[in-house]
Amino acid sequence: MKLLIYSGGMDSTVLLHRESPAIQMALSFNYGSQHNNREIGYAMLNCHDLGIEHISIDIQHIGNLLSSNLLRGEIPEGHYEDESMKKTVVPFRNGIMLSIATGVAESNNLDSVLIANHFGDHAIYPDCRATFIESMRETMAYGTYENIILESPFVNMTKREVAFLGRDLDVDFTKTYSCYKGKEKHCGKCGTCTERKEALAGFDETEYAL
Amino acid sequence: MKLLIYSGGMDSTVLLHRESPAIQMALSFNYGSQHNNREIGYAMLNCHDLGIEHISIDIQHIGNLLSSNLLRGEIPEGHYEDESMKKTVVPFRNGIMLSIATGVAESNNLDSVLIANHFGDHAIYPDCRATFIESMRETMAYGTYENIILESPFVNMTKREVAFLGRDLDVDFTKTYSCYKGKEKHCGKCGTCTERKEALAGFDETEYAL
Repeated sequence: MKLLIYSGGMDSTVLLHRESPAIQMALSFNYGSQHNNREIGYAMLNCHDLGIEHISIDIQHIGNLLSSNLLRGEIPEGHYEDESMKKTVVPFRNGIMLSIATGVAESNNLDSVLIANHFGDHAIYPDCRATFIESMRETMAYGTYENIILESPFVNMTKREVAFLGRDLDVDFTKTYSCYKGKEKHCGKCGTCTERKEALAGFDETEYAL
Repeated sequence: MKLLIYSGGMDSTVLLHRESPAIQMALSFNYGSQHNNREIGYAMLNCHDLGIEHISIDIQHIGNLLSSNLLRGEIPEGHYEDESMKKTVVPFRNGIMLSIATGVAESNNLDSVLIANHFGDHAIYPDCRATFIESMRETMAYGTYENIILESPFVNMTKREVAFLGRDLDVDFTKTYSCYKGKEKHCGKCGTCTERKEALAGFDETEYAL
């Protein structure tokens, strides 16, 4: 059985649906971003609907030690490829989440940890790239008795491809949230909104289709 | 400059002294073991004496999700090599501490993270072995902009060799603590006490020399 790192955004919600029969537990991390609470609410809701155990881990005090505009300061607008977007990177965030998830997976006799990073994340996030994922996979196996496996099935897919996969799986994208600004409605302008809007273009069940 | 993962035990205290001019910050993690509070007290004290910033990070709520007799249950007595000692392993503990330290190091423009695992830890702790350390070193470099470096200078030294190094550096071993039982005096019988006693045999400034 598997553990999913689950933000409540569209990518990890698609992965939740794709793997749901094998997922025993989903972990969300509140590292103190402006959008964490809203995202995690959707994570709880979707896990509830699918009957999957959901655990939220508060690491805001660790977030306080990390430098990122995602946690404190202004959220830039534009594409992930823009230089300004680097400010939103939370240093080694995936490393921290995957390490905690590995310990929890081994403690619960699970076989693997799932993460929904995709090809579009690579531009700015060093800890989303295939090189990091491959290396982390080895590290997790070496560092555990049961050789916990890291699964990152979207690492070579674009967000648009993830969106199509979600549509095939009947994922309700209105029950997902991504906006870095954390307001009730997606702002449509921050990095993650820009990516989301392009990925869901032409879909009619989301606010971006209007 | 460097960040040290610093428990307050004898190995990391030797490393603190060896590297002190280059250490900007030391991090202790309270993951909820019976001995964390006492260890961390010594960590604070030694950092204070050397004028090094010390930060203690409370991850007891994460510890609650991890299975280990070190955190809950009976502490076995004997050698690290004994089968019963496996119960004291906290799953992926070094992975979790190193990942958080990597994020903090990158946030503070530090070059590297120091950890004091040694050869004697290898028998039971998968995340102390050279294979894990080598792989984690690569993972940390891939997952950060500044390619944070992992330094594990004691990985091929025995605890006895670390003790001799400490003596050469005038480390006061009475200002270090290791016992898994967390009482005021070292019990002398748990896994870490057994190792410590053998490492310090013949030294005259510790209770184990009596």
